[in-house]
Amino acid sequence: MSSSILVVGSVALDTVETPFAKVEEVLGGAASYFSTAASLYSPVNLVAVVGTDFPQEYLEFFRRRAINLAGLQVRQGRTFRWFGRYHLDMNVRDTLDTQLGVYADFHAVIPPEYRDSSLLFLANIQPGLQQEVLDAMPRVRLSVLDSMDLWINTARPQLTEVMKRVDIMLMSEEELRLYTGCSSVVAGARQLFNLGLKYVIVKQGSYGALLFGQDGSYFSAPAYPLEEVVDPTGAGDAFAGGLLGYLSTVEPGPDGHYRFEDLKRAVVHGNILGSFVCEDFSIRRLQQLTLADVAARYQTLVACSHFDPNWLPSHSSETSTAG
Amino acid sequence: MSSSILVVGSVALDTVETPFAKVEEVLGGAASYFSTAASLYSPVNLVAVVGTDFPQEYLEFFRRRAINLAGLQVRQGRTFRWFGRYHLDMNVRDTLDTQLGVYADFHAVIPPEYRDSSLLFLANIQPGLQQEVLDAMPRVRLSVLDSMDLWINTARPQLTEVMKRVDIMLMSEEELRLYTGCSSVVAGARQLFNLGLKYVIVKQGSYGALLFGQDGSYFSAPAYPLEEVVDPTGAGDAFAGGLLGYLSTVEPGPDGHYRFEDLKRAVVHGNILGSFVCEDFSIRRLQQLTLADVAARYQTLVACSHFDPNWLPSHSSETSTAG
Repeated sequence: MSSSILVVGSVALDTVETPFAKVEEVLGGAASYFSTAASLYSPVNLVAVVGTDFPQEYLEFFRRRAINLAGLQVRQGRTFRWFGRYHLDMNVRDTLDTQLGVYADFHAVIPPEYRDSSLLFLANIQPGLQQEVLDAMPRVRLSVLDSMDLWINTARPQLTEVMKRVDIMLMSEEELRLYTGCSSVVAGARQLFNLGLKYVIVKQGSYGALLFGQDGSYFSAPAYPLEEVVDPTGAGDAFAGGLLGYLSTVEPGPDGHYRFEDLKRAVVHGNILGSFVCEDFSIRRLQQLTLADVAARYQTLVACSHFDPNWLPSHSSETSTAG
Repeated sequence: MSSSILVVGSVALDTVETPFAKVEEVLGGAASYFSTAASLYSPVNLVAVVGTDFPQEYLEFFRRRAINLAGLQVRQGRTFRWFGRYHLDMNVRDTLDTQLGVYADFHAVIPPEYRDSSLLFLANIQPGLQQEVLDAMPRVRLSVLDSMDLWINTARPQLTEVMKRVDIMLMSEEELRLYTGCSSVVAGARQLFNLGLKYVIVKQGSYGALLFGQDGSYFSAPAYPLEEVVDPTGAGDAFAGGLLGYLSTVEPGPDGHYRFEDLKRAVVHGNILGSFVCEDFSIRRLQQLTLADVAARYQTLVACSHFDPNWLPSHSSETSTAG
């Protein structure tokens, strides 16, 4: 049994420059990356807005992926555009330009057929809009929030109000430091639990991700070792897509909550989807992706992160037999 | 059964400033950190030089730790001094001053009683000196090499010659990028195997460490989640101490080589010793440390990095029973 997933966020046209290549006006935006990743597991209900200039081919792509477009508004005007440039260390990028277009006066409208979605992802948009979505979806089983340095710096009180109402907060390490003022990620995550969050997930890019539970539980998820990164844009949103996509296939426990073991696996799925996205521009690599590909990387991550739970040498006897 | 470990490197007096505190002329130097960590597991044979100003109390400390000082030269002059300052992000530091003192014309002399050491750590010193030590220790079972950006920039050909003669190379991510020119750690490590190395270990500070094998084997070791970092100085050398210390307690396989599973555990021990060092200035935290403390962190790392090897939800049946 699988549950449906609701996402509210941006659908955009991205122009991206890396030290090695450049693409113009390709499909981008947090909601696009998230939906493409999550729809590998379960149907996704998309809430976003595009302009009348949005390419038909991308709409058709969404429809082929079991991404419900009932909540996608098409408004007179230009689609949101983002221009970014990466450094040689691809963990670092500059935003050269942002053109809000039809997002300037966007308000989420949740179609009635979306109301039964059990999982909610509030991608990185203005915290006031995230509040409106939470108001409209009071019965959701699990809510996950993403944000960015812009809102921490300019709308901190509103962002804090949203954080108090969700189950899981996703943050990069830099965002966590910026929000909490803690130099230590462990201390910073602990501080966030004062807001009532159940889990905090710290995204660490090419270093993997950390999962902290309100009860002190902790998990460090390895990154998939990529030989080449073509474009890291959207990796955090694809991470969220893998996380919620996986959880959509899991039955919560008898108390209605997901088990920590399931959260752990979900974070590993997040890392896997994030790794695939980096292998090409836009959502291109996800287009061909199957769950069998995900399963293969899952096994690789098991193999490369598990080690003998006995801390002392266990084979003194083995060797004497062998000798 | 345990083997003895030979280390050649610096013994120094460090003055360290962090955003929160400062210490002056405390015991420092790669060989000090390494020896203190490794001597938790096995006897350590130290080769280094200090000046006549070197505090007696530190010599006594070494002696109490089963650190053999037959190879520690005491020369007329000043002990090596290092002055460093950390940023708020403690992964970043500036070296304010380095005073070589008696290291300026140091040559390693290996006492005859050290010749049977089976494990060798060449801490970060001039590659020419590292060559001399390799010449003097032709029958060592395993050799591990550390270096730094200074030698990559100023003595690259000599460093490369040393790398061709050792089994394991330790590098930070930045050093690996600098040496190979590869932006990807995976591609960079692969490139190093052309030199004949058996393993490459990439130290990632608060993100843990990666172990690459010549045959394509790979392991990602989680970092111990520290709530507070007091001073990261020496973490890389304590890492090496945990790594070789653990291996000194392990019998190699019938072919004379260590098993990959043992290397994995050794890297975890390295991360653990590195984490302890960060909890206080100098080697202070290691002074009280017992193997029971190491074992406790080992269990924590097992618990926080292992996850269900089945990638699909396994409890659909469980829940139907529970419901």
